[in-house]
Amino acid sequence: MDYAAEALKLHAQQHGKIEIGTKFVVNNEDDLAVAYTPGVAAVSMAIAGDTTKSYEMTNRGNQVAIISDGSAVLGLGDIGPEGAMPVMEGKALLFKKLAGVDAFPLCIGTKDPEEITNFVKNLVPSFAGINLEDIAAPGCFYIEDQLSDIGIPVFHDDQHGTAIVTLAGLINALKVAGKDTSSRVVVSGSGAGGIASAKLLYDYGFKNIVLIDSKGIVSSNRTDLNSFKQQALEFTNKENMDGSCSDAMKGSDIFVGLSLGGIVSQEMVSSMNTDPIIFAMANPTPEIMPSEALEAGARVVGTGRSDFPNQINNSLAFPGIFRGLLDAKAPAVTTSIKIAASKAIASLITEPSEDLIIPSTLDERVVPVVSAAVRSA
Amino acid sequence: MDYAAEALKLHAQQHGKIEIGTKFVVNNEDDLAVAYTPGVAAVSMAIAGDTTKSYEMTNRGNQVAIISDGSAVLGLGDIGPEGAMPVMEGKALLFKKLAGVDAFPLCIGTKDPEEITNFVKNLVPSFAGINLEDIAAPGCFYIEDQLSDIGIPVFHDDQHGTAIVTLAGLINALKVAGKDTSSRVVVSGSGAGGIASAKLLYDYGFKNIVLIDSKGIVSSNRTDLNSFKQQALEFTNKENMDGSCSDAMKGSDIFVGLSLGGIVSQEMVSSMNTDPIIFAMANPTPEIMPSEALEAGARVVGTGRSDFPNQINNSLAFPGIFRGLLDAKAPAVTTSIKIAASKAIASLITEPSEDLIIPSTLDERVVPVVSAAVRSA
Repeated sequence: MDYAAEALKLHAQQHGKIEIGTKFVVNNEDDLAVAYTPGVAAVSMAIAGDTTKSYEMTNRGNQVAIISDGSAVLGLGDIGPEGAMPVMEGKALLFKKLAGVDAFPLCIGTKDPEEITNFVKNLVPSFAGINLEDIAAPGCFYIEDQLSDIGIPVFHDDQHGTAIVTLAGLINALKVAGKDTSSRVVVSGSGAGGIASAKLLYDYGFKNIVLIDSKGIVSSNRTDLNSFKQQALEFTNKENMDGSCSDAMKGSDIFVGLSLGGIVSQEMVSSMNTDPIIFAMANPTPEIMPSEALEAGARVVGTGRSDFPNQINNSLAFPGIFRGLLDAKAPAVTTSIKIAASKAIASLITEPSEDLIIPSTLDERVVPVVSAAVRSA
Repeated sequence: MDYAAEALKLHAQQHGKIEIGTKFVVNNEDDLAVAYTPGVAAVSMAIAGDTTKSYEMTNRGNQVAIISDGSAVLGLGDIGPEGAMPVMEGKALLFKKLAGVDAFPLCIGTKDPEEITNFVKNLVPSFAGINLEDIAAPGCFYIEDQLSDIGIPVFHDDQHGTAIVTLAGLINALKVAGKDTSSRVVVSGSGAGGIASAKLLYDYGFKNIVLIDSKGIVSSNRTDLNSFKQQALEFTNKENMDGSCSDAMKGSDIFVGLSLGGIVSQEMVSSMNTDPIIFAMANPTPEIMPSEALEAGARVVGTGRSDFPNQINNSLAFPGIFRGLLDAKAPAVTTSIKIAASKAIASLITEPSEDLIIPSTLDERVVPVVSAAVRSA
């Protein structure tokens, strides 16, 4: 199937993917008097007296805002808020379909981190959670910091969704390759997904992690690091290595690619430790194609694509994460929630193999186990 | 029926009145590849190249934001954004039910007019229209001024919805009472609805209008007027009268009440010209009860309530107005659009009588004629 052509046709035909649905029937004046004035006044006064009632007496308790400025959409880059909307409507569709969450996409007209922060703060009375999406680094880190205590959970999917599914995949890949958390991990990419994945792997127990950006290994000898890369030195590159991605990969066990298509050669894979694990998640072109990686000695290969085995896709995480956060009325997303979600996803594969380390996005078991794990955590 | 009790029960049971609906079916990996990655990238790029395509290829073209800060909700006053939500969900329900418009309520955490203005500007890429609701005067006037040229229509329902239905009712009431636009009109209330109604009546042709606020007649001798009441002197009180509401009503033909329950006595009605028209629209208690007004000599009486004849209700206007604005891709709401809408509503009553000057909110003929009038205008 020509997905692009089919998508263009169907989106134009249907005018996008979401709409507003209604939960009250209004057929006569009495129905109207209950749904709207004068009856609604009693509901408004009850909530005004105790705003927590808005979670039960309006749709707020099941409602999440998907916020994007369109600055880092898929692999397409800064295509603007209007261009981002089809992706955000797609997320809203998955939220509803997979987890029954009512997510509304707001693609906004500013890229200023301060203004985005203010915008989101003003949304709080209407929502039970915020999903930040496709907002470029390093602005996204600042925005999330500023929103850490607004009373409802804020989850930047490009950071934490990516980190959670990466860890989920690695938990099973370690078993297949006979490795453990003492492995050396190279994380290629120091944007939202790269830094957050390195951090979550560290929090899970990996202590030997090297982070790479477009200039090479992120080390304390570098003078060109932004503050977020500097902070990343607290949990990466303990040996203070310098050099290129190729230098970092020599003798390492795991490569996590959240960077650019085609940057990894077969020689680089061959230079790694025995039975290396390669997650080449750049989209749509992976850092190295699975067949080439396997030929060069990789033991397990994962990508972001649905047409290869081991698709490591954020859609495995965000629906269940938010279902659990909403059910638990959680005020924030903690590290233990993230690790619990990774373990829950990994647990669905009882006998991991080279070609099966992670469940499919449409696997109906995923949301129940992830949301249960989030509620418990 | 006890509307309050029924409303409390039903809102708690259903968790509010709206939800997110989906327009794409996703049952397998192919469906997912069309709705989301990789297929969606082609749609995003098409829109990024021509942002007007977002009106067709996403839900934007049918999508309106309902914005409130909860500062002037129904007759309840400043009950906050959470308390306002049941009312805004009610509006969203009517938008969908009556006009097929997808309206999403955003009750926001700021009452600062400047911040509300910025918030709304940032919403533009996601919507085809903005409905401001229950935002207190005079802030609402400033906000609307600032948003007059953002490229999509902004409609403050408390101002213009009220003005449109008031004019619609008056067009037919004039016929019943044998009066015309040379009548003297007293508009009681100088908030959003009062000032906007006075302005629209003036634009329609009434030239003898006196505006009243809580201190009495708005005149140039007053030193306590805000800038919006000062501006209202350009189209009201040409004789520069001073005095109370009671003074203004003596010898006048029409009373339009958008103020406080019970402030009009039978004596005040009796002091008016013969066959006076009384629109006592304060909610839930009218400025004077219909039976009292009729006993004191009123020829036609309208209220905001569904349990008396002649309910002059904003719901007659906003669904059809926005249906027309969206269909026409109108960038703003002009005076001629508003007057066309009033005439269209009035036209549905072919033989006006004392008890029938305006159609019912649930009359299915309303939205088609109003939206057609808006499209033509």
